[in-house]
Formats: sequence, structure tokens, C-alpha cells
Amino acid sequence: MNKQKILLLVIDGLGDRPDERLNDQTPLEAARTPYLNYMAERGATGLLDTISVGVRPGSDTAHLALLGYDPAKYYSGRGPIEAAGVGLNVGKGDVAFRTNFASILGNGQVVDRRAGRIESSTAFESALNKIKVPGFQFAFKAGCEHRGALVVRGKGVSPEVSSNDPGVEGNKEKEIKPTSSALEAKATAAAVEVYLKQARRVLASHPLNKKRRKQKLPLANTILLRGAGAALEIISFKEKYGLDAACIAGGGLYRGVAKTLGMDLINANGATGGKDSNILAKVNAAKTALARKDFIFIHMKGADEYGHDGDALGKKAFIERVDAAVRELLTLENTVVAVTADHSTPCQLKAHSGDPVPLLLYGKGVRRDCTRKFGERDCAVGGLGRLRGLDLMPELMNISGRAEIYGA
Amino acid sequence: MNKQKILLLVIDGLGDRPDERLNDQTPLEAARTPYLNYMAERGATGLLDTISVGVRPGSDTAHLALLGYDPAKYYSGRGPIEAAGVGLNVGKGDVAFRTNFASILGNGQVVDRRAGRIESSTAFESALNKIKVPGFQFAFKAGCEHRGALVVRGKGVSPEVSSNDPGVEGNKEKEIKPTSSALEAKATAAAVEVYLKQARRVLASHPLNKKRRKQKLPLANTILLRGAGAALEIISFKEKYGLDAACIAGGGLYRGVAKTLGMDLINANGATGGKDSNILAKVNAAKTALARKDFIFIHMKGADEYGHDGDALGKKAFIERVDAAVRELLTLENTVVAVTADHSTPCQLKAHSGDPVPLLLYGKGVRRDCTRKFGERDCAVGGLGRLRGLDLMPELMNISGRAEIYGA
Repeated sequence: MNKQKILLLVIDGLGDRPDERLNDQTPLEAARTPYLNYMAERGATGLLDTISVGVRPGSDTAHLALLGYDPAKYYSGRGPIEAAGVGLNVGKGDVAFRTNFASILGNGQVVDRRAGRIESSTAFESALNKIKVPGFQFAFKAGCEHRGALVVRGKGVSPEVSSNDPGVEGNKEKEIKPTSSALEAKATAAAVEVYLKQARRVLASHPLNKKRRKQKLPLANTILLRGAGAALEIISFKEKYGLDAACIAGGGLYRGVAKTLGMDLINANGATGGKDSNILAKVNAAKTALARKDFIFIHMKGADEYGHDGDALGKKAFIERVDAAVRELLTLENTVVAVTADHSTPCQLKAHSGDPVPLLLYGKGVRRDCTRKFGERDCAVGGLGRLRGLDLMPELMNISGRAEIYGA
Repeated sequence: MNKQKILLLVIDGLGDRPDERLNDQTPLEAARTPYLNYMAERGATGLLDTISVGVRPGSDTAHLALLGYDPAKYYSGRGPIEAAGVGLNVGKGDVAFRTNFASILGNGQVVDRRAGRIESSTAFESALNKIKVPGFQFAFKAGCEHRGALVVRGKGVSPEVSSNDPGVEGNKEKEIKPTSSALEAKATAAAVEVYLKQARRVLASHPLNKKRRKQKLPLANTILLRGAGAALEIISFKEKYGLDAACIAGGGLYRGVAKTLGMDLINANGATGGKDSNILAKVNAAKTALARKDFIFIHMKGADEYGHDGDALGKKAFIERVDAAVRELLTLENTVVAVTADHSTPCQLKAHSGDPVPLLLYGKGVRRDCTRKFGERDCAVGGLGRLRGLDLMPELMNISGRAEIYGA
């Protein structure tokens, strides 16, 4: 059987709800998307509940499910995924947090949870990595802007500790506490508190903060830790599917998921992981990579960001920019293309929802259905029906001629 | 996120099959339902297998599933639910039966399994509750007509006992037997037999039966016990969903399910739980209750009864009466409305079937689909697809802005 290649395009937060500003259409329904529609007409559409019906997915659990990894089995917290994304190794027994640089006052009040979305925080790495806590090792690495990851290593490190993030600006930074009565949890919480105390001192006197104070910019003078989790013990994508895979994504989380599954990371010029990302560069990088890879996962973040901002018109325009780049995928040879999302981010809600996401399959071997447009209400009557996230990889393996027979 | 309220309208036995008397339409398809259609056009429809594909649901298991409780996990027999419905407490270790008063001859032959659908049987309660069986306590409470519930308490009471209902009129009343070899099952069966022997004596000489004998009405001179079950150890609806809920239903079973889940019971004027029920009064009671409750479950029984009678025209007319009352729901604010059924009761079969039931969601945030009518064949191409009963509550929690995020 001829084995086709697979390209999975995830448009983050794509799904939406009818919006008054768009005449009760969703941004995708209202967008002019001739190339996505071309694929819908010649392919098949459907709806996907990435976790299950009505469940509001996080970005981490949703991506695990889309790539065929049941989050109920593999997900323990976002920390280890973010750490993998910034290139920090999380070994067996280690615990990882995702981090934000934040601005606090002398009384501990958090006044900016993102330190004014500081442009880059790599300058802090070397000073932070000099901090010593007896019996433990801490490794910090910066990600985009205020984001980063912290790994704690040592004998008996436990992920059963709370966050110091107050969640709401104006509240005081919380104390890290054990969330179980285990001795390891108590010891870990205490060690992290010691680390944070020193980190605040290091940050206060750091040249970058001195510069920011002069510029009247919010200081990056504490670190908020969230999503404590142990290393994911996970079978690699290659081992699970026999696919040599690569990921093209700007955001640390998506790169982290891919890295955790053993995928290569490909950097595309101008791919920022934001609204301004160079979409066409990503698509072209994918086309190039398909010459040597079996599976490409492209992630586009912008739609989700417009959703969180409640900007339906911006989301519609972003989708139209994606569509223009999708034109490049129409003539791919020997490749099954899947276009979908990790979750819906309705502009009305400015948050993730549990509404199913549109799904489009295009390529040789895909059964045609009656839909001629890529949009929520069209996909609802598409030939693929209403599937779950964990169904996607088996469907792609089948269409690409790669599925093993079950029985004889 | 704004949290909407939820109104769940269950039209019992609504689903049906094409009927020759209705030009091969179902009663719902044939009915004139402008208000349900209005909601379908502005909302979304689908089909629901309350248990799973092809499974013929009982009313008890179907309602548990619709409210998000997996019957495979929680259902042990109808007795405890009926007992809760009539207001009998079933504590941990107790066993409950649903009961029918029936008419038997001196040789034990059951000649009427419902004692002529006796109007009320509450008159028997006090005499029956004086019966003593060493080592056990029995508590009886009458429900509507011939129906009621019996709770057995004592050390080592077992639900593993059979029924004395012969099922078919003309056959003899059966002996209650243990259905396992456990000593507790044997002791319980023996105790129930002792109780029944005394109950027959009490009933034979009861003034109400003396009166019925004079009136040449069937005597209520034995009790048929069915659905033995232990107390349901179940998390309350409030605890599970954070919803302060109330139920508006006439029938004991539906009230029993609601009571078991900790919902309030609201009585509506003229709501009988039958064909003649005051539908509009129920809907108006729901509207009033929504001011102080988060979730209202309204149950309408009539469609099922017409189905059991094989009366397709009657069922169609009942559905039109429901539609007229549904008009009151169109202008509800900040409320997601779901209209569905617990199972199909096709008039051809005069029994429950495993055909999926129509489902309609209406309210802010519901994605629109292409259906413009509420009927089986329209719902089959509705935007919600084909869901299961256990999917309904997550879907409603999501649309109403109440779902927790899974992951980050």
C-alpha cells in the first residue's frame, strides 16, 4: 500500500459561536476562505471534540489528544511540557513548573503578572542559575517574553506543591505549600520557597531591572510558578506511529508537546507564535520539510489570541490570512492534509469553550462529502461526523495507508 | 464568564417511528409545532441515545443518564428510586421495592395486577405499617393509584431476592426467593414472605376492601414487589455540578430520581403525571422557579402513555399541547433550554424502543445549524450529531458557561 505523508495544521482556538457583530455567523463562517473551501469541497469535514463532548480543553491536554495521546493517561501538569518547549530536560524524578516573571511591590502585592510583557528575559538566566539550595538543584530557562520554565532536581522531589501565583493582580504573591501530607511534598515546597527568596534578591539588583526602573517599565522582580508536574513517561511519536515527525510552532507549549513526543522542531523565519506570525513562512517551511519528514504539525496561534481579546473581526481577518497561505497546500503531492483546532475560543467568552472544533481532511483517498465550505455549521453536517480528538490520528493513519490491520 | 441557567424539558417517550396513520411520519414530525421549530431554527438539534446505540432504556436508567449519572455505576434496581419518589427514606443497608396493589383469588391466581387501578391506596398505609416481623422493620408508603414502595430494614438485609409478580394476569403469585446463596438473601426472602402473608390478611379484612367488594370493584388484596435494590450511594447533583436544581414532575419515578439526586420538588397546579396533566402550569412553575434556581428539570409523561396505548393521533395532539406551552420558554433570559426525551415509545410497538431521541438546544451561545424543524429526521442531520445521554450534562455545562477547564 502506498504510504502518504501527513500534514496537520492546528489553528489554535479556531472554533467559535454565532457572533452578533458578524450577523450571527462565527468568524470562520464569516471569513472569505476560498482555499479552505476548495479543500472542503474536494475532501471531507466534520466536528471534533478534542477531549470529549462539552469538555473545555486546555491547550496542553488538547494537543496531546490531537496527537493521539490520552491526556487522562499522560497529563500531569503543564510544567514539564513548557520545560521541554524551552529546551530544559525533565528527567525521571524531576519536577517542572511553567514560570512568569512578574512585578511585585515591597509588601508582596503582585501589580503585573507579566512584568509588562517584558521583551526578553534570557538576561536573567545566568544569575538565577547560580542560586544554591542545599539538597536540590534548580535550572531555569527563559521562553518568549515573560515566560519560562523551572526544573527542580534532587532526591525525593515531589510535584505535590501549590502555586505562588495569586491569579489576580493586586493580590499578594502566595506561599508555595505542599498539597499532600507526604514528607517529599513538604521538603519540596520549603526548598522552592528558599529558591524564590534568593531569586527575588537576585532579580532586585539585576542590571536589566535597574535599566527598566530608569525606563519606568514594570520590574521583573519575582517569578510566579504554576503547573507543577513530573516528567511525562511517554512513548515517542515515532515509536507509536512509525512516523518521522517535525513541528513548526512559535509558542513554547506547542514546541514542548512536540519535543516531549520526540518530534524535531523546525524554525520558520518570522514565526513568532503570535498574531503577527509569518504564516506563509510556516507553510513554506512545512512544504520543504515534507521532502524528508513523514508528518508535519504546524501550529498557528493568532486565532486563539483574537478570541481571548474578544475581537471577532480580527479573528476573521486572521483566518483569511491563514487561508491565503493554505493555497500553498492545495497542490501537495502524496500528502493527506488535516486542518483543525485544539479547542474553540469564542470571542463572546474570551476563553476556551467545550464546543467542538471544525475538522477538514483533504488529499488522495479522502472520501468526499456534501460540504463545500469550511465552517462550523457546514462541518456539523460533514461526512466525518462528530469525532473525538483521539480519533484523529487513527483516521489519518488509515487515509495515509499506514494503519495496521486489526485481526486478519 | 457569565453563567446561564439551564432548563431541561423531558417529553417522556417522545421519539417514534414512521406511522402509516400519519402518512409515514412520526407523531412529532406530523405535529404542528411552531414554537419548537422556532427554537430549532435558532438553536441546534441532534439525536441522543440515552444509554447507547440500540439499547432500550427503562425510564429509571434513562433519567439517570440524562442527568449525568452512569446507570452502569449507580443503578441497582427501581425500588430505591420509587421509594425516594413517594418520600420513603432508603438508608445505607436498607432494601427497597416498588409495589403494586393487585387482586388475587383464594388459590393465589393474580386476576388484576393493578387492583383495577385503584384510585388511592393511602388508606392501607397505617394497617400495613403495624405488621411486625422479628429482626426486620418494614415501612410502606402509597404512591399514585395502585403504586407504592416498601422499604425493608434490619441487620444483613439483602437486595438479592426475586419478585412475587407473575408478570401475566391469570398466573399465580410467585414466592419471593433468594437469587444468591448468601445467608442474608435467604433470610431476607423468608422475612418478606412472612410480611406478605400478614399483609394479605390485613388487606382482606380492611374496610376499603370491604367497600370495594360491595362496589364490585377489584380487591387490593395482595402486594406485588419488584425492583429490589439497595440504597443508591450517589453524589448529589449540587455537589457534582454546583447547580441548585429543582424538578417539576407528576410521576413518582421522576420525582424519585430528582429526590435521590437532592433536587427540590416543585408541585404545579394540575400536574398529574398523566395525559391530562396541566402542561402550561408546569412550564409556568418552571419560569417562576428559574428566578431562584440554576437548573430546572420538567418532566411530561403524556407522550409516553399515548405511545404505550398505540395512539399515534393522541400522541401527536399531546405534542401540540406541549408546543403551545413551550411558547413561554422562547423569551427566557440568560437560560439555555434543552428539549429531549428519555426514550422512544413507538406507537406501533406500544413499548419503549432503543431508537435515539430528538434533542434540541436553544439559548445564547448555542451554535446554529441548518435544521429548521424539531422532528426525528431533521434532528438526524442536526448540528449536534448523535450524542449519548451522558454527553448531555457536559454539553449543557459548556454552553451555560459552567464547565471547568481540563488542563491549562
